[in-house]
Amino acid sequence: MLPNHLIDDMITRALQEDMHYVDLSSCCLQGNANAYVQAKAAGVLCGGEIFVRVFALLNPAVQVSLHMADGAVFSSDDVLLELSGPTATLLQGERTALNLLQHLSGIATQTQQFVQAIAGSGAVIADTRKTLPGLRALQKYAVTCGGGRNHRYNLSDAVMLKDNHIDACGSIERAVQQVRANIGHLVKIEVETRNLGEVQQAYHACADVIMLDNMSLQAMREAVQWLRTQSKQVIVEASGDISLANARDIAQTGVDVLSVGSLTHSVQAANISMRIK
Amino acid sequence: MLPNHLIDDMITRALQEDMHYVDLSSCCLQGNANAYVQAKAAGVLCGGEIFVRVFALLNPAVQVSLHMADGAVFSSDDVLLELSGPTATLLQGERTALNLLQHLSGIATQTQQFVQAIAGSGAVIADTRKTLPGLRALQKYAVTCGGGRNHRYNLSDAVMLKDNHIDACGSIERAVQQVRANIGHLVKIEVETRNLGEVQQAYHACADVIMLDNMSLQAMREAVQWLRTQSKQVIVEASGDISLANARDIAQTGVDVLSVGSLTHSVQAANISMRIK
Amino acid sequence: MLPNHLIDDMITRALQEDMHYVDLSSCCLQGNANAYVQAKAAGVLCGGEIFVRVFALLNPAVQVSLHMADGAVFSSDDVLLELSGPTATLLQGERTALNLLQHLSGIATQTQQFVQAIAGSGAVIADTRKTLPGLRALQKYAVTCGGGRNHRYNLSDAVMLKDNHIDACGSIERAVQQVRANIGHLVKIEVETRNLGEVQQAYHACADVIMLDNMSLQAMREAVQWLRTQSKQVIVEASGDISLANARDIAQTGVDVLSVGSLTHSVQAANISMRIK
Amino acid sequence: MLPNHLIDDMITRALQEDMHYVDLSSCCLQGNANAYVQAKAAGVLCGGEIFVRVFALLNPAVQVSLHMADGAVFSSDDVLLELSGPTATLLQGERTALNLLQHLSGIATQTQQFVQAIAGSGAVIADTRKTLPGLRALQKYAVTCGGGRNHRYNLSDAVMLKDNHIDACGSIERAVQQVRANIGHLVKIEVETRNLGEVQQAYHACADVIMLDNMSLQAMREAVQWLRTQSKQVIVEASGDISLANARDIAQTGVDVLSVGSLTHSVQAANISMRIK
Amino acid sequence: MLPNHLIDDMITRALQEDMHYVDLSSCCLQGNANAYVQAKAAGVLCGGEIFVRVFALLNPAVQVSLHMADGAVFSSDDVLLELSGPTATLLQGERTALNLLQHLSGIATQTQQFVQAIAGSGAVIADTRKTLPGLRALQKYAVTCGGGRNHRYNLSDAVMLKDNHIDACGSIERAVQQVRANIGHLVKIEVETRNLGEVQQAYHACADVIMLDNMSLQAMREAVQWLRTQSKQVIVEASGDISLANARDIAQTGVDVLSVGSLTHSVQAANISMRIK
Amino acid sequence: MLPNHLIDDMITRALQEDMHYVDLSSCCLQGNANAYVQAKAAGVLCGGEIFVRVFALLNPAVQVSLHMADGAVFSSDDVLLELSGPTATLLQGERTALNLLQHLSGIATQTQQFVQAIAGSGAVIADTRKTLPGLRALQKYAVTCGGGRNHRYNLSDAVMLKDNHIDACGSIERAVQQVRANIGHLVKIEVETRNLGEVQQAYHACADVIMLDNMSLQAMREAVQWLRTQSKQVIVEASGDISLANARDIAQTGVDVLSVGSLTHSVQAANISMRIK
Repeated sequence: MLPNHLIDDMITRALQEDMHYVDLSSCCLQGNANAYVQAKAAGVLCGGEIFVRVFALLNPAVQVSLHMADGAVFSSDDVLLELSGPTATLLQGERTALNLLQHLSGIATQTQQFVQAIAGSGAVIADTRKTLPGLRALQKYAVTCGGGRNHRYNLSDAVMLKDNHIDACGSIERAVQQVRANIGHLVKIEVETRNLGEVQQAYHACADVIMLDNMSLQAMREAVQWLRTQSKQVIVEASGDISLANARDIAQTGVDVLSVGSLTHSVQAANISMRIK
Repeated sequence: MLPNHLIDDMITRALQEDMHYVDLSSCCLQGNANAYVQAKAAGVLCGGEIFVRVFALLNPAVQVSLHMADGAVFSSDDVLLELSGPTATLLQGERTALNLLQHLSGIATQTQQFVQAIAGSGAVIADTRKTLPGLRALQKYAVTCGGGRNHRYNLSDAVMLKDNHIDACGSIERAVQQVRANIGHLVKIEVETRNLGEVQQAYHACADVIMLDNMSLQAMREAVQWLRTQSKQVIVEASGDISLANARDIAQTGVDVLSVGSLTHSVQAANISMRIK
Repeated sequence: MLPNHLIDDMITRALQEDMHYVDLSSCCLQGNANAYVQAKAAGVLCGGEIFVRVFALLNPAVQVSLHMADGAVFSSDDVLLELSGPTATLLQGERTALNLLQHLSGIATQTQQFVQAIAGSGAVIADTRKTLPGLRALQKYAVTCGGGRNHRYNLSDAVMLKDNHIDACGSIERAVQQVRANIGHLVKIEVETRNLGEVQQAYHACADVIMLDNMSLQAMREAVQWLRTQSKQVIVEASGDISLANARDIAQTGVDVLSVGSLTHSVQAANISMRIK
Repeated sequence: MLPNHLIDDMITRALQEDMHYVDLSSCCLQGNANAYVQAKAAGVLCGGEIFVRVFALLNPAVQVSLHMADGAVFSSDDVLLELSGPTATLLQGERTALNLLQHLSGIATQTQQFVQAIAGSGAVIADTRKTLPGLRALQKYAVTCGGGRNHRYNLSDAVMLKDNHIDACGSIERAVQQVRANIGHLVKIEVETRNLGEVQQAYHACADVIMLDNMSLQAMREAVQWLRTQSKQVIVEASGDISLANARDIAQTGVDVLSVGSLTHSVQAANISMRIK
Repeated sequence: MLPNHLIDDMITRALQEDMHYVDLSSCCLQGNANAYVQAKAAGVLCGGEIFVRVFALLNPAVQVSLHMADGAVFSSDDVLLELSGPTATLLQGERTALNLLQHLSGIATQTQQFVQAIAGSGAVIADTRKTLPGLRALQKYAVTCGGGRNHRYNLSDAVMLKDNHIDACGSIERAVQQVRANIGHLVKIEVETRNLGEVQQAYHACADVIMLDNMSLQAMREAVQWLRTQSKQVIVEASGDISLANARDIAQTGVDVLSVGSLTHSVQAANISMRIK
Repeated sequence: MLPNHLIDDMITRALQEDMHYVDLSSCCLQGNANAYVQAKAAGVLCGGEIFVRVFALLNPAVQVSLHMADGAVFSSDDVLLELSGPTATLLQGERTALNLLQHLSGIATQTQQFVQAIAGSGAVIADTRKTLPGLRALQKYAVTCGGGRNHRYNLSDAVMLKDNHIDACGSIERAVQQVRANIGHLVKIEVETRNLGEVQQAYHACADVIMLDNMSLQAMREAVQWLRTQSKQVIVEASGDISLANARDIAQTGVDVLSVGSLTHSVQAANISMRIK
């Protein structure tokens, strides 16, 4: 679960976005009500605690009970949460809380589909930096709820050397050396490669992770095979237009990680709604 | 175009998200470079000015030239923008700027598809409050770039009376009256209805807009026909699981507005990439 | 009442403004005290809940009980609130809490005087965008506590076409059409007019609201009479230097709304003080 | 003039308040225009530089030229500023910029009236902590533009001992001693007194400033006379319901300072408007 | 103690700095634990309440009990606080809370050493504006916990006239007069002097405080002696490279205040650690 | 250099801290001046660009020229920067800019002393998370300017397993396995060890980094020797009360990294001052 110091600001801004003055429709509402949040299709939950926090920040008088934890699988018609409190408050928080819950559960659900697509291959599914502005922590957390892993968080916690870096230094080896001489001892270096020659250079340069960028299945197989014959273990990542249709084939080339941009840049909201009883 | 006082904070947070300390990979980069942003599939542009602003806030030394304005249609392979500046800065801003451009152009593109699907019907496509937290202004702006219209911005600028409001007041008529007695003279009232009886009540209560919520095509046709026989013009909105598959049929029932949640809650990122020359 | 996500930031800034380090005078204070807030002249209360929130944010150890709700009429010498807590805290929050309470009750009180001045006319009193920076939500809320109505909140929730817009488009009709083709279906259009000719053009252009800007009583009467002979109902607003002295005469011309800038731009603070027992 | 690091945030919030999304009315505006800001009544200018900054933050394409500096006296019909830029931007910034200019010039104008009312007496006019939340720095600056002086800024930069402090310590002398033993050597201590006995105690306790709180003219005269017979100079401040009607009489009792809450808590906006040519 | 409205933002930023996403190490931790905070060397406590607030903001489930108040003297091995709560939370807050506690207690401890070094002299120890960005309120509060006094908080609450001011005005007398004519009656003026001639000018100009800037002990003694022969009391401050080695000698020249920049610009963290039982 | 989106907020808060209203002393200053910043002792520069940014944010009219880059070594009396602009602005920014420059250069200088102390050993100096709240990015950047390396930035970018984690999981091996199964492929795992047995367990568990925590020199030598006999390279870090006195001996045990908390928690400000010509 994400700590409050990371989400309160985002939630407050979302509440302000949805209500920059009063709720004009609420003047005819009084008293309390009960409500429930129900899935209209199967999926993986993410955002339950955040849903609770939205109402806690909006009005502490609302009580919310979670029926399952983030990461749990739910079926269509499952009740995910129940809540009670002032009727007007329930309607005022509904949209903000659902927007978050549906988006994050959508990510977790799609991630799980990728994870299942490659089940048994030994590879893992990872996200990318292709996230929506202001929502990276939440989106990456949702990926882990769906069984995926997080790629580097941003430019400050791992090194990724692309052709521009390599060209600037003259060779993969020199680029890795130059960066290694500056970074801390807890930082890994990943090198983007486009063919076996570059894979071999990256290996000899002692890259911690080698990315096979937009290679054919055959090229990936050859790269992995060559790498596995070397004595030292190196992590191999496949990247580039990975979809549910091709994920299994890619995983079976023997790579360790498949990084999938669409997990966070093209999210289908989970079909979840809230009903006031 | 959105004014800077609305987007600078969002952009700054996005830049901080993608780089909370230094760019660890940049220590081997020097000098300047040129880059271009290119479409890999056809679409509608949104976010060009925001792309420019990302680099302006990151480092004023970067020059960006826009090849077309927001709302313009582009083809696959079109170059959308060109930019030049310090190589390290180009790589540091790339992801944040593209994440925004791809998301917003994705919305504009999908909106345009809906607009084209109902072309000639006289109806318009509108968005909803089903937006992603922190991005409402941008997402609603993207809808207009795709030729759509904006539904109410939030709870503070228009009234939407749902069954909870109506139940609390006893009838549609009393709900409308009670709200009308409190709101300003520039605020409209929309009433959600589920059948012809409610449509007729909403009409007699002088609702400004009547929403036909999840009605069948036949029910919508009847509602529109009845309303058009009345002397006074009222706006009719169709809502509920509207997709590219059913939008044309719905538009042809004679409604004025189709509101589509998926425009903003389930966005397919536009396929756009940046290349450094 | 305004939600916490709208007022907490403003209150926190006000507390920081009044105490950017420690309270230098408090080192000789210990223990608890009781205090009460008392009116020294009659008026209408606004800001009671905000007063409570000031102390809740300053120090949750303070207990505040409200003797009446926002919008209630009070007489001179009425006790409006009672509070108890650490003596030092009571003195530290006093000024910030009172500044808000006196300002907002001043607005509510003055609004009520306008409302009473036009009682029986059928017209309503509305505010404007002439508010104090950072305080718009509070000031507009105070107007409603005094029995007034809110004009548009800002440039984003309703259209007001002035001579500049009309000149740019060539005519009132074309300006209304051009805007109508871009805005959402929940947005109203108001047109500023200076004489009967413009009123008639605005009416034929289907403006939702027609503002009679700085017209003479006689001109306003003629405009209203002409409009009332038309088949369709349109809202008529009088604007321009409306004071307690002329409000009744203006209301009796038959207009629907009188908008009064001085309600929020020239506020006489309510005479309210706090005493520690 | 106030530095940007103090006003930019306030201005940005004000611009967001007046436009939380797009300016709905601007879609029919194009091109540039010239405008001028004109006084409709005489007064003292305050907020010219802030007016300039509003437009600089809104859109650097606007050019603003100031015709006079803050603190200058203007007559009715004087043109105070001229500006040119995109027509839409001029209309978007107009209200925010004018709201500030009118409020601050209103304070400066009223302050000058008080200063003139006591001219020749040797006393000065000071403000209080009765300011509007979020606007203290601006309001206090406006007081100085009108020829007034600033009382303490807040609880953190000077000591004011009231009856609560004195009761808690047992006597004025002990309260002053106890506070003096804790504060820094650049902090002054003011003591509130209600009669000659307390004035004498405050004097003997070495208070830096003695406030005569709500005393009659006769009591003030006696207090000042007694104090002036003592060897050491002490500053004497009159406080409590000081108006333009009684200021001169109070000043003539010989006090050094008249502190006037209404300067900032009950401000009449200056009558200034902006016209687009 | 500093109020929450001054420290919550700083603490939240510190927590975000130490955890911008999840705590990667915590996935193997469950359940609750007890912990204690222990001194490994003697000192003066400052930051106990802030330590408590760090955990309150991080996770209200943590219970913290303070064994002593800010300003208390502790010995090596003393337990300063005890806390209990979720093990993962204890580890997540440990570093942020300790960083604050060690820094502030370091300041308080060093301040006390200076206070003791001049004990009996009648002089006091004061801080300066040489503080660390973002931490001024906390650092100045720590100085008071160590028995020191606060010099002016910043440029806005007292006047310090240096050679630049004096040169600009032509003489000390004219500089003091010019400033006095603008500032409020609760503001003191301090003048920097470099020799007896300037001290005498400052005295005759009625400076409230005279700073002896980098003078020799002999020069300070002469300045104090001359000033004490005058009828009026004036505060004398010594400034410039004051260390524990020379503080006593300086104090014995008869000055009232020794201001010491190293109290806040060169802080040795107190040796305090937290242990989980 | 740190990007503006990371430092502007910190600088703005620092400027507000040092001037929450006007600069009371500046009313007697006019015109422009030149100034220079000069070292009074040798050291390593850090904060030059930040110094420039302070004045850019305070007032763009100030011109600053840097005489050397961050990381450069300077001697006593060297002029580090020159600046010119309005005299009042120079004095208003002086303290904030110098406080940053002196603190960061102090860190860089002390880091360089550690680096020199272990020169030739093949080991590197690293910082820790013992930083001052709000200043972590700046302090860690200063360490790199002094020739040091950065340890993990915070809890979110590398794993550190301490005795609490190990106890919770039952063994070092299980702790490493459990964490490895959750984290991304770009994250390293460091294990704290207290004796050779734990070092061996950490090695067999495939820890990326092994910390020797507070071990004797002899124990460290034995640990390093055992590790160097294994086939796989692992990084070894020494930690615990490392000072300039013992750093060389520790480095000569053969460890790869010495992490030094005092680099950032106990900083001696560099002796640098600014003079106005």
